[in-house]
Amino acid sequence: MEEITDPGDPRLADYLSLTDVALRRRAEPAGGLFMAEGEKVIRRALAAGYPMRSMLVTPRWAEAMREVAAGAGAPLYLVGAELAERVTGYHVHRGALAAMRRTPLPAPSALLPGARRLAVLEAVNDHTNVGAVFRGAAALGMDGVLLSPDCADPLYRRAVKVSMGAVFSLPYARLPRLGPGLDELRAAGFRLLALTPDPAAVDLDAAAREAAGSRVALLLGSEGEGLSPRALSAADARVRIPMSHGIDSLNVAAAAAVAFYALTRPAPGG
Amino acid sequence: MEEITDPGDPRLADYLSLTDVALRRRAEPAGGLFMAEGEKVIRRALAAGYPMRSMLVTPRWAEAMREVAAGAGAPLYLVGAELAERVTGYHVHRGALAAMRRTPLPAPSALLPGARRLAVLEAVNDHTNVGAVFRGAAALGMDGVLLSPDCADPLYRRAVKVSMGAVFSLPYARLPRLGPGLDELRAAGFRLLALTPDPAAVDLDAAAREAAGSRVALLLGSEGEGLSPRALSAADARVRIPMSHGIDSLNVAAAAAVAFYALTRPAPGG
Repeated sequence: MEEITDPGDPRLADYLSLTDVALRRRAEPAGGLFMAEGEKVIRRALAAGYPMRSMLVTPRWAEAMREVAAGAGAPLYLVGAELAERVTGYHVHRGALAAMRRTPLPAPSALLPGARRLAVLEAVNDHTNVGAVFRGAAALGMDGVLLSPDCADPLYRRAVKVSMGAVFSLPYARLPRLGPGLDELRAAGFRLLALTPDPAAVDLDAAAREAAGSRVALLLGSEGEGLSPRALSAADARVRIPMSHGIDSLNVAAAAAVAFYALTRPAPGG
Repeated sequence: MEEITDPGDPRLADYLSLTDVALRRRAEPAGGLFMAEGEKVIRRALAAGYPMRSMLVTPRWAEAMREVAAGAGAPLYLVGAELAERVTGYHVHRGALAAMRRTPLPAPSALLPGARRLAVLEAVNDHTNVGAVFRGAAALGMDGVLLSPDCADPLYRRAVKVSMGAVFSLPYARLPRLGPGLDELRAAGFRLLALTPDPAAVDLDAAAREAAGSRVALLLGSEGEGLSPRALSAADARVRIPMSHGIDSLNVAAAAAVAFYALTRPAPGG
């Protein structure tokens, strides 16, 4: 354990100004770094095979995290809570922050063998929503996530945190282009269902019953725009969650959770 | 329409320092005021029968909201965007803010006739979660919400906003005490289901099938603590959403949405 008291110490370079999106993007090319925060999430990142570069802890968490860093073969930097906040630019709530090394993403085709239920996200570019959708997809038993090129990064700090580490538990890949990616899914026998608030779409429950024996890829769009016309027309069916009381939609994480649940529960009597 | 340029103008008193929780609580006793923000939410509050005290608009929204205020018989105050922010203490994103008058809440017993699916919230004291649970409950066809005495106020600004106005569409009441309230529900023929991550609980899907013909009250606890031992032991059954990939829970709004969906969809073939 190395105690650091100088905010300009070069060992703290990975932790500088984490709230600045531009800086994070510069620091996060392929093979770059990402941040895991809090004991549970850090342990999940390690269990998923991500190498640790270093860990920053505040005094209260030093003892608990010492063996985690040692097990990962990474240096452990001890800093005061005030210095941690000054360096990172935000309040380090969970007392431990690990700089992790990215590993190459699998090819989309690597997710297909054995998968029965995939989520496909189109242009979900809010990190909180990406994290929440991953948490729901992992918790409810989806087999993986495919991202359109313009989806937000699941390993961005906020997405990791909101997902409670689910971004480490669930396989995911990025489609180089959405259209050919959907063609590949269909060729592999997946039925493509597009989730939409469109009242003309099929009710989710009926669609889930019909798809019980098939492989399914569920297409989800962003909160504001929904799925693009191209994605909607590429789908085999449009699916909606029936709405009541004059409410027109759920937020994307709640809608996704409901759809994941409907598509993953076993057929009655099955 | 009355233009106001002085931040100390007494007509702006309802809109002062809306971000200060202590001030809001002082201003929101029974029969006090609450805030509705944005055209859609303001219209929903009016449609639900809440009287409008006044409305504050920024210039861009003045024309669109003029007839809404006139229809409600309330004064419309026009202020610059900067003055709006200075008075309220936050950026008035949706350009229109209405000070509404509370009406007396119904007694819990008034929600029971005709209701088949109720949500009962215990100690959900985060306004974002209360708003999100209401949005899901209304959208997914629950018939009403009962709140324990220590639940957060659904008419608090943040809850109203996150609910997208669902707090106006869905009947709700506050139980003077949780225990006797649950007794009353049971006496009215409701089956009490407690949602919990406890692995020993019954799977939601099986519980929903079993309860298809019954009246059901679904008990939901707060994100941190879950339901109290008292609430758990008062329930007729404990129900869980099966979890995968080592994830131990969903957030309360997503879990609630999944449970509402499971309990409100028609039985297969029914």
